[in-house]
Amino acid sequence: MPRTATSDEPQRSEKWKARRDEIIDTSARVFARQGYHATGIVELCTVNGLGKGAFYHYIQSKEELLAAIHDRVMDEVMLGADRVAAAGGSPSALLAMLGDELLDVIHRYPDHVWVFLHEFPALTAERADQFRKRRRKYEQRVEAILQAGVDTGEFRDVDPRLTALAWLGMHNYTYLWLKAGGRVSARDVAKPFAEIFIRGIASS
Amino acid sequence: MPRTATSDEPQRSEKWKARRDEIIDTSARVFARQGYHATGIVELCTVNGLGKGAFYHYIQSKEELLAAIHDRVMDEVMLGADRVAAAGGSPSALLAMLGDELLDVIHRYPDHVWVFLHEFPALTAERADQFRKRRRKYEQRVEAILQAGVDTGEFRDVDPRLTALAWLGMHNYTYLWLKAGGRVSARDVAKPFAEIFIRGIASS
Repeated sequence: MPRTATSDEPQRSEKWKARRDEIIDTSARVFARQGYHATGIVELCTVNGLGKGAFYHYIQSKEELLAAIHDRVMDEVMLGADRVAAAGGSPSALLAMLGDELLDVIHRYPDHVWVFLHEFPALTAERADQFRKRRRKYEQRVEAILQAGVDTGEFRDVDPRLTALAWLGMHNYTYLWLKAGGRVSARDVAKPFAEIFIRGIASS
Repeated sequence: MPRTATSDEPQRSEKWKARRDEIIDTSARVFARQGYHATGIVELCTVNGLGKGAFYHYIQSKEELLAAIHDRVMDEVMLGADRVAAAGGSPSALLAMLGDELLDVIHRYPDHVWVFLHEFPALTAERADQFRKRRRKYEQRVEAILQAGVDTGEFRDVDPRLTALAWLGMHNYTYLWLKAGGRVSARDVAKPFAEIFIRGIASS
């Protein structure tokens, strides 16, 4: 989903955006393998087949690249959450769908998730703030579903915040073992996870 | 718990071991703040108030230090698991106790957990192998409790491996938000987490 251009963000072509996404993905793979701090701009230029000038045509700085890796995943995660909200259903159904969507993204972006979960302390000032805000926004989607379930009596009187953290931990932690092309698919994991979690908080 | 000395590991005094543990803990804090790769031996000597010769009297190498950070936490985690096994009880009771013990360790060693979860790819050869084996050993404790619950009919017919990963994710992920001296204690979290999980896999 293209972001709305702000005053200090020039309108860019679709081609520019596609090339930028490629650079973000390639860089995420390199950061995941050898670490964010250990990877310099020169190396990022080489792996992306770009000169320094061309590289800075797409990316403002290494830190902006780190923020972009996070944004790329969070864009997808929020799109998934929007699809769930649009589909509608009982709190249980919504939570199961949300888990499906989340694991699908983690499964497709293991390098990105690895990088931002491990390197987010390198984000500073506004970028650190933006990172926290975007993550909080998603957490609030989870909490809202839990609260709705408590309100309708479908769920026990659980604490939505703590319960959301339990749900997020169970799902997010899969980044360490759920591999693209591995033995189990994201769907294979999402279904039993949803069963455990929803039975775990069901009112009866 | 002192490890049994092997042929290539000289017997060390309790004082030596205590000082080594101090160095491990101080270094874990520094690694957690600025990253394993970004921290050199010279800096580790400085923060530990030791010359290079004295430092190497306690620590073989930076990589050995990383392994020791993991071992220090895993020693405690396994002691907790041993206490649970010794206490005995139903699979539900055992799983609840295990969660209590695990969150207590994560809560007391946030820097250590941060460091080894983020930096374990830096371990090589035998140390990487040892790291995997120790983690696997703990996972097997979780799986054994789940299998016992399935066998007695206390738990649904869940897949012990996948269910253990769900349980571990829910608990391990707290390293990102459960802070020593924070608003909630490890026990405050362990209890509702156990309720969710055990209801989630209960047979009725």
